[in-house]
Amino acid sequence: MRSVCVVGLGLIGGSVLRAAVAAGRDVWGTAGSSADAQGAIAEGFTVLDVDAALRRAAEQDALVVVAVPLPAVDAVLRKVGDLAPENLLTDVVSVKGPVADAVAKYAPSTRFAGGHPMAGKSESGWQASTSTLFTDAAWVVTADEETALPAWREAAQLALDCGAGVVPTTTLEHDAAVARISHLPHVLAAVLGAVGADGGPLALALAAGSFSDGTRVAGSRPELVLAMCEGNRAALLDAVDEALGRLGAARGALASTGALGATVQAGHAGRVTFDAYRSAGRAQAMVDLTGPDPMEELRLVGARGGRVVGFDGDLAAVALPVLAD
Amino acid sequence: MRSVCVVGLGLIGGSVLRAAVAAGRDVWGTAGSSADAQGAIAEGFTVLDVDAALRRAAEQDALVVVAVPLPAVDAVLRKVGDLAPENLLTDVVSVKGPVADAVAKYAPSTRFAGGHPMAGKSESGWQASTSTLFTDAAWVVTADEETALPAWREAAQLALDCGAGVVPTTTLEHDAAVARISHLPHVLAAVLGAVGADGGPLALALAAGSFSDGTRVAGSRPELVLAMCEGNRAALLDAVDEALGRLGAARGALASTGALGATVQAGHAGRVTFDAYRSAGRAQAMVDLTGPDPMEELRLVGARGGRVVGFDGDLAAVALPVLAD
Repeated sequence: MRSVCVVGLGLIGGSVLRAAVAAGRDVWGTAGSSADAQGAIAEGFTVLDVDAALRRAAEQDALVVVAVPLPAVDAVLRKVGDLAPENLLTDVVSVKGPVADAVAKYAPSTRFAGGHPMAGKSESGWQASTSTLFTDAAWVVTADEETALPAWREAAQLALDCGAGVVPTTTLEHDAAVARISHLPHVLAAVLGAVGADGGPLALALAAGSFSDGTRVAGSRPELVLAMCEGNRAALLDAVDEALGRLGAARGALASTGALGATVQAGHAGRVTFDAYRSAGRAQAMVDLTGPDPMEELRLVGARGGRVVGFDGDLAAVALPVLAD
Repeated sequence: MRSVCVVGLGLIGGSVLRAAVAAGRDVWGTAGSSADAQGAIAEGFTVLDVDAALRRAAEQDALVVVAVPLPAVDAVLRKVGDLAPENLLTDVVSVKGPVADAVAKYAPSTRFAGGHPMAGKSESGWQASTSTLFTDAAWVVTADEETALPAWREAAQLALDCGAGVVPTTTLEHDAAVARISHLPHVLAAVLGAVGADGGPLALALAAGSFSDGTRVAGSRPELVLAMCEGNRAALLDAVDEALGRLGAARGALASTGALGATVQAGHAGRVTFDAYRSAGRAQAMVDLTGPDPMEELRLVGARGGRVVGFDGDLAAVALPVLAD
């Protein structure tokens, strides 16, 4: 089993370290936060300074996992370019375009496939990390035209070892999708929180489930939300424009005829479809990775809402959703 | 204890019937839905046809509670105007302006104060009703310039007997507040549900907590959401315009500087204030209902986020929020 070097030991990096160790791999980490580093050391994990960690990665041909917030990615990748320039490389950052750009700039000879585990919780830091954070979660591993299959498999195998299912898609499609289903929800929650609070104590005293659910993520730490949303600026702009178009149409309908049917029916249909995917059955299939265009085959799995759930030699076992009638 | 006639035995009306019976009152109901009527009869509650129920209300000077969806309110109030024209009257409909207008038109001699219990669940109908639905909930009883204190007290006492705390406010302020914290959340959830589903299977497969929370109420029955939102058209239009302004500002910031700080910070502050009200301590106070303008005193309680929690002769016991530092 390939050894793993995790750079950054917060909630996500710490959970990767724990899960990879639990899977039996040789794993070490490095952390910019001394609290995170001390926490990991106190529990008996191997923590080195960043230079030593990356040198060891180069010596052992380890998979390097970048698990720092987006603003710190450039600095880490400069180090990787210096000390582990041809290593296998992945990351767990929530946007993929800016990371891919930085890899091309600072560590262009690494064997890279980007990653994004769709898991989290409201606490952050090593103390919040667990080896089971990714159990049954979706974990995107980017499958672009230029992604080499061996690098993709190494990143995907780490996700599988962490208990996740692997969703293959392109960098652009990932960023567009998470703008819709992760970053736009944060923007709309912020808008709702502000409009609600503008109603003063009476409005807040009357607020119940719909307001509470609709604003929950507005309670997240603003700096984390900003790093995530601002890091996906282009795709989020498209999603916000779609939302503005739909909200403007609702406004127009309300002002003219008073009828919100089109808005409410479309939203209901979207939620019903989402529920259908969540409760879908799973059909098993195999993708032959020796075929003419295995990356395209893998991307189709992601486009259909499916996941890679394991490897058997040159076959990838995939699970595809089967919606109830 | 004054007897109570509940018109409409769905989730809310059925729960009022059960709670008022549990409080020891003489209560009977009537239902347009035979399933709701049969359900209540099967459990031993008194259910009459609508004419008989309202005639009995007139004979016993009962409090009539209108608990039908907004589109059915006019027809019920015509009956009330015919058969119980001078009765005490309240309602449990989620918008207050249209109900007040209909009362003025069809049952102008009733002793009316509008009501709105801020409680619900996703199921509907008698089968979903419970005697504890309103426990600790906020229950608005409208306190307008023209509202007579005795009528207000009767409606408020029913809310108290059902286990709720009474929030006094005007019809207009109620409708503006619920537009912000109840109806706008439904519109934004619908917008988010539609934008998310437009991302196809990939986006829905990656969607997790933020999308699920943000679209939960889009799963509600569209006809109920439409009746609620369309019935509060004018106030909802104002709230949607505020949301459009804030979302447009976010869009502009994203397009120009890429910085969402103002949006995210305002939303975070709103959510933190909401949480502060939810976890606030309560200071007890008394309002003397024999003072020069008791309705204004009561409205101030609502404006401060407080509730009437009981009556002691001509004193109203109120609980006012005390925010932690």
